[in-house]
Amino acid sequence: MQELETYFSTLFDGRKPETLYAPIAYTMQQAGKRLRPQMVYHVVEMFGGDVSQAQYVAAAFEMLHNFTLIHDDIMDKAPIRRGLPTVYQKWNTNSAILSGDALAIMAFQQLLKLSVNEKTILQIANVFATSTLEICEGQQYDMDFETQEEVSLEEYINMIRLKTAVMFAGCMKSGAILAGADQESQEALYQVGINLGIAFQLADDLLDVYADSSVFGKSLGGDIRDNKKTYLYLMAIQEADAEEKPKLKQCYESSDLDFEDKFRQVKAYYERLHIAEKTRQAIHAYLDKSFQELDKVKVNNEQKATLRKIIADLEQRSK
Amino acid sequence: MQELETYFSTLFDGRKPETLYAPIAYTMQQAGKRLRPQMVYHVVEMFGGDVSQAQYVAAAFEMLHNFTLIHDDIMDKAPIRRGLPTVYQKWNTNSAILSGDALAIMAFQQLLKLSVNEKTILQIANVFATSTLEICEGQQYDMDFETQEEVSLEEYINMIRLKTAVMFAGCMKSGAILAGADQESQEALYQVGINLGIAFQLADDLLDVYADSSVFGKSLGGDIRDNKKTYLYLMAIQEADAEEKPKLKQCYESSDLDFEDKFRQVKAYYERLHIAEKTRQAIHAYLDKSFQELDKVKVNNEQKATLRKIIADLEQRSK
Repeated sequence: MQELETYFSTLFDGRKPETLYAPIAYTMQQAGKRLRPQMVYHVVEMFGGDVSQAQYVAAAFEMLHNFTLIHDDIMDKAPIRRGLPTVYQKWNTNSAILSGDALAIMAFQQLLKLSVNEKTILQIANVFATSTLEICEGQQYDMDFETQEEVSLEEYINMIRLKTAVMFAGCMKSGAILAGADQESQEALYQVGINLGIAFQLADDLLDVYADSSVFGKSLGGDIRDNKKTYLYLMAIQEADAEEKPKLKQCYESSDLDFEDKFRQVKAYYERLHIAEKTRQAIHAYLDKSFQELDKVKVNNEQKATLRKIIADLEQRSK
Repeated sequence: MQELETYFSTLFDGRKPETLYAPIAYTMQQAGKRLRPQMVYHVVEMFGGDVSQAQYVAAAFEMLHNFTLIHDDIMDKAPIRRGLPTVYQKWNTNSAILSGDALAIMAFQQLLKLSVNEKTILQIANVFATSTLEICEGQQYDMDFETQEEVSLEEYINMIRLKTAVMFAGCMKSGAILAGADQESQEALYQVGINLGIAFQLADDLLDVYADSSVFGKSLGGDIRDNKKTYLYLMAIQEADAEEKPKLKQCYESSDLDFEDKFRQVKAYYERLHIAEKTRQAIHAYLDKSFQELDKVKVNNEQKATLRKIIADLEQRSK
């Protein structure tokens, strides 16, 4: 992974106009967790593929991820990301739109740098493009949900599948294609990514309310403060009885309550309705599905150890 | 070209969420001039290439063009395009950002639909990606120029080369690649596009001041009203003497003058400095270069007739 940081540290140097590329360099140098490139590397290594080529695929997905963050932060009016001002805040909205566009194109250009056979490049490009379009669809659903009166759990899962999970799935499948894996393993890894990605987002929703805040790294209850329709809230709405439902809704949408009161009251509903437990069960079920799909991948058990650990770590994190 | 309209008329049907795809369909169904796809078709026909495949390349560039319009209109705060409200006006900025993103990806996906050999697809994808990134660079320069004190004619030409001409060039070169043309012809056609594109933008600048407004289709003087640093203005600044230059500048940047007065005064400077004539000379020179490059293309003269006519028409239009 160090070579990826080295790669990013010079990729945007000397490009003109500087006003276009400075916001891109700024974003890409905030290292984040680099979760998506790790997945690419792990899968390529799992099949004993060419790790030097993996860099371009890993870079493409990480750049794609950061492009979505730059544009999403405009749409969500998010002032801070990774402890620093977001691009549209530090520069301006126009700059964030255009730098995001340029970053998306540069992401795609990484795939064109691959020195492997053309068919492989095109297969990866196909996965990449499909994932990218689905991510836009997911973001649109997410925005639509803000004003949509009723959102079902099924709709919510579909939204996070698109917005979050297809990129995990795309990373894994692309790694498998690059490493020359058979089609069944490619598909299985795609499903590993989908289920892991959904679990990842559900864990995020859970931790926003129930994390140990000294470990979590951001203050709790942000979703509740912002009236965000999370898995926990939508599950609570589903589980609440006819009397409780409108009360919970009113409380969640209230702008009169001060934050501490709102957080406490919403948590009381969640506790009465066993929402944390039910969310943990859902996470467990998705991770279980992820393990099952990993079983189908045609390499030996030892080679699956790293991915198995990633899945297990997420289970641990959400306990 | 009719098959392209038919293609666009169903390409966005039935996709979900409708909130993402409705702005795309709205934009793509305003037919515009379809200049860029025409260039692709003309070049493919010139070499006797497979016109059925040309559709995907033509669609890709037209979609790319429309993506840039959706995002540019946000940045330029343009309320009207082709006589209709722009996307961010009809929907909202978030919608325009995200629909633009999705349209850009769909543009790229068109190339992946090509049924030709993989190497050809990747070559076209390379041209397409490079053009797209350069268009972003051009748009950034254009925005930077708004607040930049001094802009040279050379900087301006570089900006319009990136913002406008590389897409013409990309269309022509991609058409040549698709048709299996030799590399020298590919490069020559790229240069035909560059020079034609620059001439096209200079003609646009000229017509904004000097068109027969009954033919032009939009009211005159918009660039002067918006203090836009056009070729005409920058040429006038270059040609003005030490005494005249600050006066012209003050007049152009003035927000006190009413539009009719400003338009008349700026035109008086342009007339004294022979700006229209000098702009026509520049257009002529770029079109001449375009003809010279077309001469290098290795097909017989008859096959060049359509492109020759396009170049000649632009000369006629700017007279």
